[in-house]
Amino acid sequence: MAEKKANEIFKEFKEHSIAEFFKKNKQMLGYAGLVRSLVTVVHEYVTNSLDACEEAGILPEISVSITPSGENRYIVGVGDNGPGIPKKFIGKALATILAGTKFHRYIQQRGQQGIGAAGCTLFSQMTTGKPVNVSSFTKDGESYSCSISIDTMENKPIITDLKSLDNGEGKTGTIITAEFAEVKYENSDHGVYEYLKRTALANPHAQIKFRDPEGKEFTFVRSSDVIPEMPKQTLPHPLGLSIMDILDFAKKSDEKNISAFLMASFSRVSSGKVKELKELAKGVDFEKKPRELSWSDAEELVKAFKQIKWLSPDSSVIRPIGADRIKLAVRSILNPEYMHVIERKPQVFKGGIPFVVEAAIAYGGSSGKKVGTEEYTGSILRFANRVPLLFDTGSCAITQAVRNIQWKRYGIDIDNQPVSVLVNISSVYVPYSGVGKEAIAQEDEIIEEIKLAVQEAARNIQHYMHGIKQVNVEKNKYKTIMRYVSQLSKDLSGLTGMDKVTIEKKLEELVSEHYPKVNEENKQEEQNEEKFEIIESSSDSTDEE
Amino acid sequence: MAEKKANEIFKEFKEHSIAEFFKKNKQMLGYAGLVRSLVTVVHEYVTNSLDACEEAGILPEISVSITPSGENRYIVGVGDNGPGIPKKFIGKALATILAGTKFHRYIQQRGQQGIGAAGCTLFSQMTTGKPVNVSSFTKDGESYSCSISIDTMENKPIITDLKSLDNGEGKTGTIITAEFAEVKYENSDHGVYEYLKRTALANPHAQIKFRDPEGKEFTFVRSSDVIPEMPKQTLPHPLGLSIMDILDFAKKSDEKNISAFLMASFSRVSSGKVKELKELAKGVDFEKKPRELSWSDAEELVKAFKQIKWLSPDSSVIRPIGADRIKLAVRSILNPEYMHVIERKPQVFKGGIPFVVEAAIAYGGSSGKKVGTEEYTGSILRFANRVPLLFDTGSCAITQAVRNIQWKRYGIDIDNQPVSVLVNISSVYVPYSGVGKEAIAQEDEIIEEIKLAVQEAARNIQHYMHGIKQVNVEKNKYKTIMRYVSQLSKDLSGLTGMDKVTIEKKLEELVSEHYPKVNEENKQEEQNEEKFEIIESSSDSTDEE
Repeated sequence: MAEKKANEIFKEFKEHSIAEFFKKNKQMLGYAGLVRSLVTVVHEYVTNSLDACEEAGILPEISVSITPSGENRYIVGVGDNGPGIPKKFIGKALATILAGTKFHRYIQQRGQQGIGAAGCTLFSQMTTGKPVNVSSFTKDGESYSCSISIDTMENKPIITDLKSLDNGEGKTGTIITAEFAEVKYENSDHGVYEYLKRTALANPHAQIKFRDPEGKEFTFVRSSDVIPEMPKQTLPHPLGLSIMDILDFAKKSDEKNISAFLMASFSRVSSGKVKELKELAKGVDFEKKPRELSWSDAEELVKAFKQIKWLSPDSSVIRPIGADRIKLAVRSILNPEYMHVIERKPQVFKGGIPFVVEAAIAYGGSSGKKVGTEEYTGSILRFANRVPLLFDTGSCAITQAVRNIQWKRYGIDIDNQPVSVLVNISSVYVPYSGVGKEAIAQEDEIIEEIKLAVQEAARNIQHYMHGIKQVNVEKNKYKTIMRYVSQLSKDLSGLTGMDKVTIEKKLEELVSEHYPKVNEENKQEEQNEEKFEIIESSSDSTDEE
Repeated sequence: MAEKKANEIFKEFKEHSIAEFFKKNKQMLGYAGLVRSLVTVVHEYVTNSLDACEEAGILPEISVSITPSGENRYIVGVGDNGPGIPKKFIGKALATILAGTKFHRYIQQRGQQGIGAAGCTLFSQMTTGKPVNVSSFTKDGESYSCSISIDTMENKPIITDLKSLDNGEGKTGTIITAEFAEVKYENSDHGVYEYLKRTALANPHAQIKFRDPEGKEFTFVRSSDVIPEMPKQTLPHPLGLSIMDILDFAKKSDEKNISAFLMASFSRVSSGKVKELKELAKGVDFEKKPRELSWSDAEELVKAFKQIKWLSPDSSVIRPIGADRIKLAVRSILNPEYMHVIERKPQVFKGGIPFVVEAAIAYGGSSGKKVGTEEYTGSILRFANRVPLLFDTGSCAITQAVRNIQWKRYGIDIDNQPVSVLVNISSVYVPYSGVGKEAIAQEDEIIEEIKLAVQEAARNIQHYMHGIKQVNVEKNKYKTIMRYVSQLSKDLSGLTGMDKVTIEKKLEELVSEHYPKVNEENKQEEQNEEKFEIIESSSDSTDEE
């Protein structure tokens, strides 16, 4: 075989656009498998709607419809009451990969990459040859509709049929309708219904309507009318910042010197802390301009950061779901016998990024997964910034952490008991392992923190289970005694002439005082009546909320 | 909370470069975790070296060195005897993400995305602030060295210190040296040594030298001197081609009409097949220009393709490892008691892309994984285009397929026996699930084909194990009889006066004829003496091959 020269080989050298790349590798965006591809579409649109409503301070009302249009072919419609998308940005928002409002900001949002919606446009185009249709209503007096596709060679939008719309009522919102082939609706753990249900559970302030391919309508009713406060935009925390991060910030800084730059660019850096830093990083000239900061300066600063005692990152920038709401949600889907919910304090991982882990363990009820007629195995419900993660289970940090726990220590047989472990990670930056955002990368700090959270929950459920056993013993005694109270009251009333009801009440109080645990549990059960509500209707939808 | 208007929100709208994207999401390229990050670097460089040698028709000689330079900090050097990289392309090859020779071609190569090497440059720059150093020697008289980093905002190379080099000897090759922090060398199943060992096993024509951080040197000696034929560049097979694929090819075609376009652009399309297509796709005007092909034309063609009986894709475009070489490799790493290797016929998956699955099951020896002192569990060795996949095990199609097999049917207890399952997928396009190329997407057709291959191997090993049991019985008898042959020969020699050696030989032949299976096995064992060779030396390396 003749040897080929370098120049011959490099004749083929070409650059290609990110849109071309994902056209060839659409599985990397989550478009692999018929069922998963449909969930990916719904996931991208719903995520954007929730983020838009949250940012605009609007209580989200989202409607999703999936209408069959052929074999493995559906029209997906997603509408919201968000702020709308300005005409100027609509093309890039839906048809330029790596463009958006979220990438450059340190803020907790569901989306973060500027890929999702454009990926849907690409997928629609690839499987049906059709553009995506959008209508948008904004408060700025702009209301319009148009069709959008991607010029994949250039990664640029092609907009057609642009029309102005009348918006007499002054409503706001965005409605996207697109057709997809190579997709399939399925009623399973990995399907759209399950995705929306879990989304509703993690977002109790959102009202989500869904019309499935058979025309059945469901409403996941909002259980909270309070608009969650918008997560604050934050500055990176010095702990764990990489050298390159510091240099990147320095390059963009207009501050007069390094001291001012550090205080302006990073959180928790006060003038006092700058003094400490000066003591530690003697090689750095704190009076020079930020853009004069060298690699070795930044290296010294990173080392110094690690020697100082910092306040932890401002937890107000993170919006976890909240322990109470998780309890409500878990009770409503799983109706467990016992559960415990943990909300951990904010932590920091690589790059100075704060995150919060919430974990719940539920035992009994519909927890776990049935694997036979009477056999169960544990299951894991994964969330990131309130977004349910249904795929790529094996490679996720959450799965990894949960599997690494020595469950037997906590009296739990995770492989053979009806146990559900729920974990939600909230952060201004979630390190997804892939562009499809279905799994969290296995960063040691994150795995460790998840482990601690789940272990804490496990310790508590172990304790609780033990308590429940005791309560059960008392409960039986209590019940036995209570059975005699009515007869005894009647007899005492006959003997003494006192009112039977009064005697009965007093006796009951007496017994309850002896069994405080039982009493407390009864109260708890009453409170827990409040449940997550799903309305199912086969009639046409009305405008009622 | 006041509502925010769309225009306020979209003030933050920005586009960003693919380099910026991966800088923020480096875990998506495989840079997550200290140990994995180091393997990713070695993997990217070695993959490129092997591809370059193969394309140039050169027997690969690759040397890898890892030298500590601080805490969790190493200098990685990778040199090859490939064709070199022309000066004109060096910047983009090492510092433009999504540029390369491989993306646009239908050809089986290890790399396919144009991301790997530029990703290494980005990672070096992010963790140490240093550029990558490269020296290149080509047959075109160009020999030079330079340093390269990435302008991440623009996704463009920055080249410094460009120097011409003397290349008196006329050698070719590329040497890359780069420093990385946030990495760690570890001697484990997931480490660099294991990666190189498995690479050598799947590429018996490559000679790979390795110097580990302690200065220990290893040579994975080439076991074949035959340069494997370069895989042919191929045309897509009509089966499974998507509508958009056809339109994309049509847009670029200069053929005079659709008929000519189909024959020129896709494999197995003869004039006879075009006639059949005309009968089936009556709505398509086969005389018009390719660029006039409409979506509905292409849709009709795709439907027609599925009704025609095609020759399977040309298997010569695919270069699997080969059953014999897999046998050799498995025997050398695992030294199993029994094994069976299957090489399946080429198949096609989505997009008309042919692929070949090879599978081996090995039982005993060092197969499986030790989980206790005497306990074992099954293990899976995954390869794609001869590249070992060490990470993201859970989300890989190979893992999925292997786990879904009902092993008990084949008399194998995969969870508790020393069993190794090896799978290699060869294709002109491997659908990796992520940019880091560590797992194969769970496409149904691929999972199914892997399952069939592994099941076939399982059926054969089941049979073989049964046979081995019989042989063991015979072997014992054979051994018992053989024990008497020597004494008997001596006695007969004394009685008859015949030569003892002659008698002994004749008796042995007689016994062997009675136990053909035993005899066959002995021969096999002799043949299997040929083993994969790893030379370990702590002295300095010499120039000997």
